[in-house]
Amino acid sequence: MADPNGSRALAGTQRTLARLLSKVEGGQKVTDLGLAEPGRGTARVIGLTGAPGVGKSTVTGALITQYRAAGRRVGVLAIDPSSPFTGGALLGDRIRMQRHATDEGVFIRSMASRGHLGGLAAATPQAVRVLDASGFEVIIIETVGVGQAEVEIASQADSVIVLLAPGMGDAIQAAKAGILEVGDLFVVNKADKPDVQPVVRDLRSMLALGSWGTGWKPPILTTIGSDGTGVAEVVASLDAHWEWLNTSGELARRRLARARSEIVALAMGTLRDRLSGRDVDGLAARVADGELSPFAAADELLHD
Amino acid sequence: MADPNGSRALAGTQRTLARLLSKVEGGQKVTDLGLAEPGRGTARVIGLTGAPGVGKSTVTGALITQYRAAGRRVGVLAIDPSSPFTGGALLGDRIRMQRHATDEGVFIRSMASRGHLGGLAAATPQAVRVLDASGFEVIIIETVGVGQAEVEIASQADSVIVLLAPGMGDAIQAAKAGILEVGDLFVVNKADKPDVQPVVRDLRSMLALGSWGTGWKPPILTTIGSDGTGVAEVVASLDAHWEWLNTSGELARRRLARARSEIVALAMGTLRDRLSGRDVDGLAARVADGELSPFAAADELLHD
Repeated sequence: MADPNGSRALAGTQRTLARLLSKVEGGQKVTDLGLAEPGRGTARVIGLTGAPGVGKSTVTGALITQYRAAGRRVGVLAIDPSSPFTGGALLGDRIRMQRHATDEGVFIRSMASRGHLGGLAAATPQAVRVLDASGFEVIIIETVGVGQAEVEIASQADSVIVLLAPGMGDAIQAAKAGILEVGDLFVVNKADKPDVQPVVRDLRSMLALGSWGTGWKPPILTTIGSDGTGVAEVVASLDAHWEWLNTSGELARRRLARARSEIVALAMGTLRDRLSGRDVDGLAARVADGELSPFAAADELLHD
Repeated sequence: MADPNGSRALAGTQRTLARLLSKVEGGQKVTDLGLAEPGRGTARVIGLTGAPGVGKSTVTGALITQYRAAGRRVGVLAIDPSSPFTGGALLGDRIRMQRHATDEGVFIRSMASRGHLGGLAAATPQAVRVLDASGFEVIIIETVGVGQAEVEIASQADSVIVLLAPGMGDAIQAAKAGILEVGDLFVVNKADKPDVQPVVRDLRSMLALGSWGTGWKPPILTTIGSDGTGVAEVVASLDAHWEWLNTSGELARRRLARARSEIVALAMGTLRDRLSGRDVDGLAARVADGELSPFAAADELLHD
C-alpha cells in the first residue's frame, strides 16, 4: 500500500480506471476494490463551475493543454445531471476535448448519479480518490448547471474557478445562483466578445460586498478559451492559490470540511436506502387523499 | 376545519401569511399552526424555471397581470439559494413586481432554506399548502438557478413552464441542465431580440428526441415579458394543460408523486438532524488524517 507517487497503485491504464469509476458511480465503495486507505491528498483538486454556455469544456481543454505542457498528469470529472436528453449534447463537449483523447497523461470522465450511497455528493470524492491513487497530479471537477447541488460538488475542490461570459447572464445573475461565495478565482471567458468589461466591473462590485476574512482575495481574470489566451495566467493564479492554501492552513481546513460532508453524504445515502425499502407509496396515497398529514406520514415512515 | 373555499382559514392578511411562511421556512411544521389537514388541492400550482437572465421575474409579473385581470388570486413563491450576496439582486427582482405590491389579491414571497426538515424540498409544499388554505387560486413557484435541486422543486408543480431566451444559452445548454424533461410548456422569452427562431427550432429538435407517452405534447410559445406579448397564449396553454391533467388522471398521479417526495424529504430532514447531533468532526479529522476510510466513518456515525 505504501506507494508514495501512487502511479503504480492501479497501474493507471485508462480501461482499469474507467471500470473503477463505473463502480464508484454505481454506488460501490472503493474500499471493495482494495483501496481501503483514503487518498493521501497528493493531487490538487480544481473545481470549475458556471452557467450553461460560458465555455466550461473549452476552458477545461485549455487548462489540460497548459498542465500537460508542464508535464503534469490531468484527470477530469465532468459532473452531469442525469438526463435522457443529454447524451448527444455532452458527447459534443467531450469531442471538443478529443485532442487529448490519445494522451495517456489525460483521463476524462463524465459522471452521472446512477447509484445511491449519497449520489454524486458521495461519488465525486471517491472518484477523486481513485484518480489521486492512479497518479493524476491535477484533478479538475467540472460541474454542469448552477444549482445548489452543483455548487456543493464544485466546492469539494481545493481551488474553485467560477466561470462567467459576456451575454450569458451578468454577475448579478451569477450571484443569484449562489456561486459567488464559492469562487477562489473568477474568470470571464469569451473575452473577444463585446461587453467583457461591464461583466468584470459588475463582478468587482459584487465581490466588494463579500467578506474575505481568510486572507485570499479572489482575482478576476479574462480568457479566450478557444485560443488559450489568458489561460497561463489562470494557471499562475491557481499556483498562487495553492501556495496560499498550504501556508495558511486553509488546505487542512478545507479537506476536513470535505471529509465531513463526504461522511454525512454516505451516511444519508445508507439511510435513504433503508427508507426506500419501506411503504412510502401507501403513505403517499393517504397524504394525497387528505387522510394523513405529510408530517404524520414521515413519522410513520421513520417508525416502520 | 371544514372550510371548503379555504379563504377564511387564515383570514388571508398579508402579514399573517408572511408570518406563517417564515415559520415554514424556519423548519416548523404547519400542523403546529392549526393547519393539520393537508391542502385540499384546490389551487393550481405552476412551476417556472430557467437559466439566470431569461426573464423569469418579468414573465411572472406578466402572468400575475393576466390572472388578476381574470379575477384570480395569485401567490408567488420565489425560491432562492441561500446566499449572502443575493439580498440586493433579489430585491431588484421583487421591485419589478412592485406594481402588484398594493394588490391584496397578490402575495409574493422569496423563500430561502434557513431551516432543516428537508430544506426547500420540504418547505415548498408546506408553503404551497399555506397559500392554498388562504384562498390563492393560482400559485407560481419560480426557481432561480438550473441545478437538479431547483428542477426538483419546480417539478412539484402541476404545470411546469421552462423559460428560455435567445443569447442566454441555447436549447442544448438547457438540455444539459436537465430541464427539458420537466417542461409541460416551453416559452422562449425576449422574442423581440434577434435569434429567437433558432432557439425555437433547436428546442423543437431536442423535444422530438423525448418520448411523450402520456398524451401531452409540450407546446413551444414565444413571449415578450416586458410588454406582455404572448402571455395570454401562455395562460391559454396552461388552461389546456390543466384540463388535460384533470381528464387524463395525470393530476392525481403527480400529486401522489409530490406527496411521496415530500414525505421522504421530511423523513430525511429528521434523520439529518439526528446525525448532526453526533461527533462528525472527530470522525472527519480521522478521515482527513488517513486514519479511517470515509465508509468506516459513515458506519461509525450511524451506529453511534
